Amino acid sequence: MQFASRLDNVETSAIRELFKLLGTPGIISFAGGFPDSAMFDVEGLKEASAKALAEEPGGALQYGATEGYEPLRTQLSAFMKTKGVEVDPSGLIVTTGSQQALDLLGKTLISPGDKVIVEGPTFLATIQCFRLYGAQLISAPVDADGVRTDELEKLIAEHKPKFVYLIPTFGNPSGAMLSLERRRKVLEMAVRYQALIVEDDPYGDLYFDQAPPPSIMSLTQDVPGSRALVAHCGSLSKVLSPGLRIGWMIGPAELLAKATMCKQFSDAHTSTFAQATAAQYLKSGRMPATLAHVREVYAERARAMGEALRRELGDAITFTQPGGGLFFWARLTGAGGKVADANVLAKRAIEKLVAFVPGAPFFAEKPDVATLRLSFATANVEKIREGIARLGTAL
Amino acid sequence: MQFASRLDNVETSAIRELFKLLGTPGIISFAGGFPDSAMFDVEGLKEASAKALAEEPGGALQYGATEGYEPLRTQLSAFMKTKGVEVDPSGLIVTTGSQQALDLLGKTLISPGDKVIVEGPTFLATIQCFRLYGAQLISAPVDADGVRTDELEKLIAEHKPKFVYLIPTFGNPSGAMLSLERRRKVLEMAVRYQALIVEDDPYGDLYFDQAPPPSIMSLTQDVPGSRALVAHCGSLSKVLSPGLRIGWMIGPAELLAKATMCKQFSDAHTSTFAQATAAQYLKSGRMPATLAHVREVYAERARAMGEALRRELGDAITFTQPGGGLFFWARLTGAGGKVADANVLAKRAIEKLVAFVPGAPFFAEKPDVATLRLSFATANVEKIREGIARLGTAL
Repeated sequence: MQFASRLDNVETSAIRELFKLLGTPGIISFAGGFPDSAMFDVEGLKEASAKALAEEPGGALQYGATEGYEPLRTQLSAFMKTKGVEVDPSGLIVTTGSQQALDLLGKTLISPGDKVIVEGPTFLATIQCFRLYGAQLISAPVDADGVRTDELEKLIAEHKPKFVYLIPTFGNPSGAMLSLERRRKVLEMAVRYQALIVEDDPYGDLYFDQAPPPSIMSLTQDVPGSRALVAHCGSLSKVLSPGLRIGWMIGPAELLAKATMCKQFSDAHTSTFAQATAAQYLKSGRMPATLAHVREVYAERARAMGEALRRELGDAITFTQPGGGLFFWARLTGAGGKVADANVLAKRAIEKLVAFVPGAPFFAEKPDVATLRLSFATANVEKIREGIARLGTAL
Repeated sequence: MQFASRLDNVETSAIRELFKLLGTPGIISFAGGFPDSAMFDVEGLKEASAKALAEEPGGALQYGATEGYEPLRTQLSAFMKTKGVEVDPSGLIVTTGSQQALDLLGKTLISPGDKVIVEGPTFLATIQCFRLYGAQLISAPVDADGVRTDELEKLIAEHKPKFVYLIPTFGNPSGAMLSLERRRKVLEMAVRYQALIVEDDPYGDLYFDQAPPPSIMSLTQDVPGSRALVAHCGSLSKVLSPGLRIGWMIGPAELLAKATMCKQFSDAHTSTFAQATAAQYLKSGRMPATLAHVREVYAERARAMGEALRRELGDAITFTQPGGGLFFWARLTGAGGKVADANVLAKRAIEKLVAFVPGAPFFAEKPDVATLRLSFATANVEKIREGIARLGTAL
């Protein structure tokens, strides 16, 4: 069978091979990128879905508008308002998880050979998703304050990208938070170079001690002309449930119109059953308590992992303590002659029954093999301590 | 904003403009392509979703395998077995509606310029979906026994298509049923020319008086070497609920593997919440009664529409009485100097408060403006009689 040429642009991920080993009995895994199932508000979702079927069975079970189920768009508009973003229900479309928002951006915007700037490192499925549409990815370096805007500006000026894709808040995998000052700079750059900025924000609600700076989308109100140059992707996956597959995209009207047309032929619309359930959940008023709960639990786990890493790995590793999200992004220093290649360490770690993800695949260009990603989301504090101790042994 | 060049291959559908008029008060619509909401088994789905959340909250709300939720794959495998198709759970993938199966076929197989043979007429969203991936569509003529296999063979030999896409059973919009003899011929052709056949089968369960011939997929067991050359797309949308967005695709292992890779970057996976609900529903054993019910109601409506068309439009129209599905496909004859352009009639009909869809957009090539599609699914018998009477007046 001869497959489409676009498939030549992607490769089966090395990480998938690693994931096959995660079923090993007794393993402690920091490899996943998902939230803890134990924190899902099952009771609230059960009520919400029963209510959706009782009050609006037709709406919840019939075909729906490609743009999204109206009551959910209304709830998401209100939800975004609590986060400082003014958007009409008609100013956002519902997507099948925020992964589909990425796919629609690719389908709508990327012609083969077009350049797209991403952070180095960035979300693995973003790299593959855009490459499938023929994008040439350019990697902008990241430090503890997020993407380096001085470097980003040079890259925009040089490459004139179709768009710039950023995960500014507790990014996957970097965990970094783009500073307020840099957020403003990104918007000024967008206007100066008329460059579209895509802000992917699945983790912004998962902050620990203090709220992150306003999203790039909400800051557009301070930078004249910038609102028409920003698309914002949101998701209920990390805070409520990934299984619902509810994401959304806010953006310029003409972009949303084209994305809607493309979505019609991608999946017609997102499950109205899931949309009606999510709408009822948001309407029920349970979301603030759910957010408070996940923030508290993840904050405790993040603290435990930071302490354990310092204690068990010492100067063999460097990292910035994340202020939110699900991930530690770390770098092996090779201090004391210890291993500095995360691929090597990953194999040894599996033998010691602990798993993490090497960082190299997260780079669209110039992979840094000394980096690694550790998720603190799904193991409890005791397991985290034990797992990091095993990692110390493996090192 | 500069959009991707692939968007130049599709146009906003003329039908969309028509659909905007359907909100007119008092209109009787035969325009839709959806099942009747009144027939959804709301009670059964409520129980199924409650059970899914009670028994397997983690599975129903967490991220899931891109290939599909295992309990649903098992149920779908059993469901296909009742329809004469032997397939392991691992031999099918779950898609976000069967629309996504089409999208994945396009993404996986179509390089720009590749040829794909479709029926003339065929499903509108298939035409647009494949064109977005750069396909050149070739149209094979259809009569009351489905696609004309003599013509199809010539087209396959001449164009060497990437694949042939058929809706062999009560097709949208043609309502035609491919005869058993032609089904075998299609499979023999597949083997002779090593051509991939895609069988889209959302309507096969909606038969009235007698069951249709076995699906092309189930007939592969009679034609050596053909199984590896057939992909089969199924859907719960027309028989249970479109809002769940549950479809599936059976096909050669290497095709499913590539489609799964592509799906990972399209939407990660289909809503596990919807999948777990569908799995519980299928497991509950309510499906046979649900199918019997929708068959009975649609059969009655189809009979009423056929009678009314003959009575009210007489020799101004020709059609074959459908044996299943949701649609009448008809052709204006122009007899007695009456209008023979369905676009003209559609406008007059709206003035008389009745709506249908002109047939021309359903042709990838050489549109026949005398054709039209009438759905009998959503209006009751009384409304059908009244609506067709109005159509007679409009004509």
